[in-house]
Amino acid sequence: MKQVVLASYASGNPKPSDFRVEDAPIPQPGEGEVLLRTLWLGLDPLIRFAIDEKRLSGVTQVHPGEVMYGPTVSAVVASNHPGYAVGDVVEDRTGWREYAVVAPDKADWRGPPRKLDPALAPVSTALGALGMPGQTAHACVIGIGRVAAGETVVISAAAGAVGSLAGQIARIRGARVVGIAGGPDKCRGLLGLGFDAAADYKAPDFAEQLAKALPEGADVFIDNVGGEVMLAVLPHLKRGARMPVCGFIAYYGMGMEGPGPDKLPGFFRAIMSKGLEIKGFGGFLVGGQQALDDIAGWIAEGRIRCPESVVEGLEAAPEAFAGVFSGNSHLGKLLVKVSG
Amino acid sequence: MKQVVLASYASGNPKPSDFRVEDAPIPQPGEGEVLLRTLWLGLDPLIRFAIDEKRLSGVTQVHPGEVMYGPTVSAVVASNHPGYAVGDVVEDRTGWREYAVVAPDKADWRGPPRKLDPALAPVSTALGALGMPGQTAHACVIGIGRVAAGETVVISAAAGAVGSLAGQIARIRGARVVGIAGGPDKCRGLLGLGFDAAADYKAPDFAEQLAKALPEGADVFIDNVGGEVMLAVLPHLKRGARMPVCGFIAYYGMGMEGPGPDKLPGFFRAIMSKGLEIKGFGGFLVGGQQALDDIAGWIAEGRIRCPESVVEGLEAAPEAFAGVFSGNSHLGKLLVKVSG
Repeated sequence: MKQVVLASYASGNPKPSDFRVEDAPIPQPGEGEVLLRTLWLGLDPLIRFAIDEKRLSGVTQVHPGEVMYGPTVSAVVASNHPGYAVGDVVEDRTGWREYAVVAPDKADWRGPPRKLDPALAPVSTALGALGMPGQTAHACVIGIGRVAAGETVVISAAAGAVGSLAGQIARIRGARVVGIAGGPDKCRGLLGLGFDAAADYKAPDFAEQLAKALPEGADVFIDNVGGEVMLAVLPHLKRGARMPVCGFIAYYGMGMEGPGPDKLPGFFRAIMSKGLEIKGFGGFLVGGQQALDDIAGWIAEGRIRCPESVVEGLEAAPEAFAGVFSGNSHLGKLLVKVSG
Repeated sequence: MKQVVLASYASGNPKPSDFRVEDAPIPQPGEGEVLLRTLWLGLDPLIRFAIDEKRLSGVTQVHPGEVMYGPTVSAVVASNHPGYAVGDVVEDRTGWREYAVVAPDKADWRGPPRKLDPALAPVSTALGALGMPGQTAHACVIGIGRVAAGETVVISAAAGAVGSLAGQIARIRGARVVGIAGGPDKCRGLLGLGFDAAADYKAPDFAEQLAKALPEGADVFIDNVGGEVMLAVLPHLKRGARMPVCGFIAYYGMGMEGPGPDKLPGFFRAIMSKGLEIKGFGGFLVGGQQALDDIAGWIAEGRIRCPESVVEGLEAAPEAFAGVFSGNSHLGKLLVKVSG
């Protein structure tokens, strides 16, 4: 089978050469273990944290020579565990490989493989709308953002898995939704998903587009980016605006500091003068099963669409993952189709 | 009479030479007007916003040659207004001068001169515990910080007017309170006010002092400072900690940017990984009359003390104000006694 290992720690934005595709023997399941064949691999931006020489998150770290970490949807192809049968489809974090052996009774705090119901929705949505990105979007719009009817919501990285869902959930709540994305294709895609307006941060007239889309300012700013895009939005926030922080991809390749000048003074000025409420989405705030049930219901009612961008084959994962950080043009959840 | 005018816009931290003491004729009250003799002048750090060439706040700006802005307590010495009698004591914002004429019926959004009850507390407290700083402390501890019994609260600029009150209010709420201040005298002063521990940010072992004072981390961080002190506290905050931002004196002399490197990446990392809740105290969130009533009650019960540091005479104001930004050693509210 094929697997992708980390060739060297990433420095700044990841490059395809940070990874290496290898052949490896298909592992064999022992007592209480299950053999999984990977169907789908999700290319979450958060994976960047795992491949830094510095420990940037509390959870997972991959060292050179080790198989890459990543969330997956897989089929059970052999089972020595009574809870899993051949043919079951599960979501887990088995990494960038075609096959993996897992021991459900020895799972870490994230729990054993989660069995999926293919009748509910395509199983790939377990990595997007019906998984962590969906729970994140739900928590940021409803739990943290408290978006109400008639409010205006602005979302950065709106074409991403979290942003595209957050915008649709905010629309269901009765809000007017403005998305920020890179390039005219993504912006058109947002309008196709029902966003009321879109602003292209790569366009020379981004500031004008943003001002035009937010003539009366925004009540809620769901930020997935940080950096220049975030700083451009701040002047458009109303007094008392809420700002759920769901991610900060502009800084993922940095440690605690970035190139100067220091932008904290202006950020504090905005916090103070506008009475902003900023709240981080720590992973521990996931919306839980209620979030997944809500989203599954909205999908069934046709009120939420789950765009996916798919690349074929595990070998394509390094370049696709690097593209996440250089502003590629995918809309929705970025997936690798590892096997059919 | 004497008055202090702005000699030139401040650049960075204010210097005494940014100001000039002048003689001027005592103004005469016209129809509907009142002549006030200044008793006390409060040297709020926020005054820094008013004396920058750039407009840093929405409210007040002083240009070179104009009399300095500032909150005051004054005695009515002549009145052509039925609501004010000679001998009344009022709080207003009449600036750095010995006499001023005001027109109560033409007041701005901040309202007409507020009449004080000298029986309630010394009138100087209208500039501190029973005025804006008291309302700020009340709002940050109770309204924004939601401090509960058994929690640990850490406060920066704890020896200042807001910080020293916030710590005492948090103690009344049943919290354990750690104050950060500059120098051993201020730190001793905090312990004298009932703080459970103090850390001296000017000491070479500040990091160790802070770690020792917060062995299990903090639930609430009331920040009046920003900058290096704020960044030193972040690692000690618990998951889900609340962080009311009451001020950011480290940045008052800057516009939107400070010297590099950019510290926003680390700040966003903390927001996200800890699920921090940060909320700015916009002036519009003042606790109102309830805050003043609560604090007056606590003063009467002897549960809150209102330390004041007094400099004598209007001529002393420029140097005392500059000292606020160079880390002077005053404890509590910094006041100029303009007349007796």
